[in-house]
Amino acid sequence: MSSFYNRLMDSYNVQHTHSGVNGKRLAERSSALAETGWTDDGGCLRISFSQEELQAKKLVMQWMEEEGLSVRMDGAGNVYGRLEGKEDLPAVLSGSHLDSVPHGGHFDGPLGVLSALEVVSAWRDQGYQPRRPFEVVVFTDEEGARFNGGLTGSQAFVGNIDSEEEKNRVDYDGRPYEEVLKEVGLTPEGVANAKRDLDEVHAFIEVHIEQGKRLEKAELPVGVVTGIAGPTWLKVTFEGAAGHAGNTPMNDRWDALVAASDFVVQVKDFPPQVSDTGVATIGKLEVEPNGVNVIPGKVQLTVDIRDIKAEWKQEIVRLVKECAENVAEQHGIKVQLDEMMNVDPVEIPENMQQKAAEATREVLGGEPYLLPSGAGHDAMIVGRHVPVAMLFTQSKDGISHNPKEWSSLNDCVQTVHVLKRFVEKVCTE
Amino acid sequence: MSSFYNRLMDSYNVQHTHSGVNGKRLAERSSALAETGWTDDGGCLRISFSQEELQAKKLVMQWMEEEGLSVRMDGAGNVYGRLEGKEDLPAVLSGSHLDSVPHGGHFDGPLGVLSALEVVSAWRDQGYQPRRPFEVVVFTDEEGARFNGGLTGSQAFVGNIDSEEEKNRVDYDGRPYEEVLKEVGLTPEGVANAKRDLDEVHAFIEVHIEQGKRLEKAELPVGVVTGIAGPTWLKVTFEGAAGHAGNTPMNDRWDALVAASDFVVQVKDFPPQVSDTGVATIGKLEVEPNGVNVIPGKVQLTVDIRDIKAEWKQEIVRLVKECAENVAEQHGIKVQLDEMMNVDPVEIPENMQQKAAEATREVLGGEPYLLPSGAGHDAMIVGRHVPVAMLFTQSKDGISHNPKEWSSLNDCVQTVHVLKRFVEKVCTE
Repeated sequence: MSSFYNRLMDSYNVQHTHSGVNGKRLAERSSALAETGWTDDGGCLRISFSQEELQAKKLVMQWMEEEGLSVRMDGAGNVYGRLEGKEDLPAVLSGSHLDSVPHGGHFDGPLGVLSALEVVSAWRDQGYQPRRPFEVVVFTDEEGARFNGGLTGSQAFVGNIDSEEEKNRVDYDGRPYEEVLKEVGLTPEGVANAKRDLDEVHAFIEVHIEQGKRLEKAELPVGVVTGIAGPTWLKVTFEGAAGHAGNTPMNDRWDALVAASDFVVQVKDFPPQVSDTGVATIGKLEVEPNGVNVIPGKVQLTVDIRDIKAEWKQEIVRLVKECAENVAEQHGIKVQLDEMMNVDPVEIPENMQQKAAEATREVLGGEPYLLPSGAGHDAMIVGRHVPVAMLFTQSKDGISHNPKEWSSLNDCVQTVHVLKRFVEKVCTE
Repeated sequence: MSSFYNRLMDSYNVQHTHSGVNGKRLAERSSALAETGWTDDGGCLRISFSQEELQAKKLVMQWMEEEGLSVRMDGAGNVYGRLEGKEDLPAVLSGSHLDSVPHGGHFDGPLGVLSALEVVSAWRDQGYQPRRPFEVVVFTDEEGARFNGGLTGSQAFVGNIDSEEEKNRVDYDGRPYEEVLKEVGLTPEGVANAKRDLDEVHAFIEVHIEQGKRLEKAELPVGVVTGIAGPTWLKVTFEGAAGHAGNTPMNDRWDALVAASDFVVQVKDFPPQVSDTGVATIGKLEVEPNGVNVIPGKVQLTVDIRDIKAEWKQEIVRLVKECAENVAEQHGIKVQLDEMMNVDPVEIPENMQQKAAEATREVLGGEPYLLPSGAGHDAMIVGRHVPVAMLFTQSKDGISHNPKEWSSLNDCVQTVHVLKRFVEKVCTE
């Protein structure tokens, strides 16, 4: 087997293989998927709408069939593997995506798909049939590496795709949307018409790697997500006056970088004033003209603000905007504020959080670890229409979107145990 | 005549034409020089070692000859026009350069050459001969636009050029030093051997535009430079840890930009603690990875620190370095400090400043305006070997190295009056 498989199995504690959940099978499927798009540095290049993404989907469809699921791919390339329930009720869905960012890893996406599939495999080994139908889902193009959008499969699933708008898209090589889709057997119309009848869907549950360090610090394999934070992106432009660094006295300067720095230092203090889950990040900052001996005339920066409740986020946004205005006034320079993006957070229903917490208690013992999702996921899109929940698996060093992305097989299998118990509870509703 | 000439003459007050100093002649010579390298936007493209720089020098040499000076060009392309004094003593020199930056203006350099020449013309009209010999000087390649060095002529004048080092230079088009020099009749050996016998030089006086706004604010045509600030360039690299903007709680961040901003805000307060003339500028700052949704892992910035006394500058440097270390410690991140450049300031001898101040009082009445030079000039190189002085002429809006660079003819002519009186005093020593 591959080095990836060996690394997964290396520190695996076989005690986690029980109740039908099989660590070796999960490792085998993970490493088989990893081979599609494997890069020399051990990372993953499985861009959306590529042959690699299609190949990975086909592999999962084959496993679904082996598990006796009825398998289909919709017009958006979303894959569903359905296990009928004891009763003809709206189904519980679980899954994630198989596409990666360039230079990505092998857990962001695949873990959610394979965890849901492992639940089915475990049930099959145990001869268990849920009350509600259960579907393993693969959503197309979550990352958006191809057309700079992303969440395409889940958007299509809820009926958010406007085929006229999409048709004008071109990919990173300048190739048109229609042409790229055709190569993987899809059409713009197919994507636009892939909306699922949401009355048939009882809930969607997504397992995902944390992409942060909270669980690692807490030394826990899995956590229960309390909400999915939607980002607001503010572009802030401070404009002062450029000047010669040698010939402009300190008391006659309108230095845009000094003002921007005053702002950056203050912004970090706002989220904790509002909530425990809010964050504000100035990740991008550009100085003009950016010469060693020229006083900065202009600084343009972005503030990424997130929280899991809309009113909390809006309060942080308000404080940040007020601060920008105050700083500009104090420094005697101009400021311009532009809201580039504002995605509402998605709340995880209380009863879903409770069931996930109960499942965690039953599997792991002790209190479940609750944490917000700072990043967007397919569950964020689906969650605006259908009750959703998310489980996060511990990420090594919090690294993701990187070949170093890693979660131990122990943690992945523990997550499957929690997911299985959780899904059983929701399927019994 | 040209639009440049008309603009110069437009608001000229002819009362300033007296004592042999002639505003019209200065305007004519300025506009004739401006035609060599004139650009469509009214700016100047007279790069060092270009045909335009050579043509400008030849024009000045012709005027020198018309004024009865003995004219020569040395191996570095420096031009000297010598008027013998009543006594055979070391000479007083005055001048500047004729090359420009790309998209430069018509005053930075030429004003210093033409002011010195106008002094000779005025003397000739008045039948005055100084006690000491007086030379009008044009230094080659002050700006360094061609080979990214600059101050070549004045470095050659004091014997600082190592021909072996220079030989490996290539210009902005990748063409070798020797080939570029050949086109304007120069050789690497000629440049390296152009050292002047400095015992023959009593003093060097340079007129230059201020390139700042102090004189404009003081509503004065001319100021006396108190010292030439040499820059120290510090590269400061803060290294924290990158992370996902959504998934990293505020209390678990090592944000390099937050630390760098804390530093930027503090640095501006150090120069005023040390002197009235010190400045510190963070003009260049780069964030890594500079993504909207990624916590900055690394920030690299430069601090440009200047003052006219070496001990003052070193004290500011010390405070800045100490601050960087403290900030890094407080934020729990790493910092690295690299001194990229450290040019000692050049002091203007007290007796030179006094004579310049007396000349200003006699010409303008009132107290002379004293100001530091924040930028480097040929006088900075010469001043390490020979007593130097500088007069600054008011710059409109403080703009230089730009087609908008401007000084009114009134201010230029007033400067010549002060220079003439000043040179007469120094020539009489």
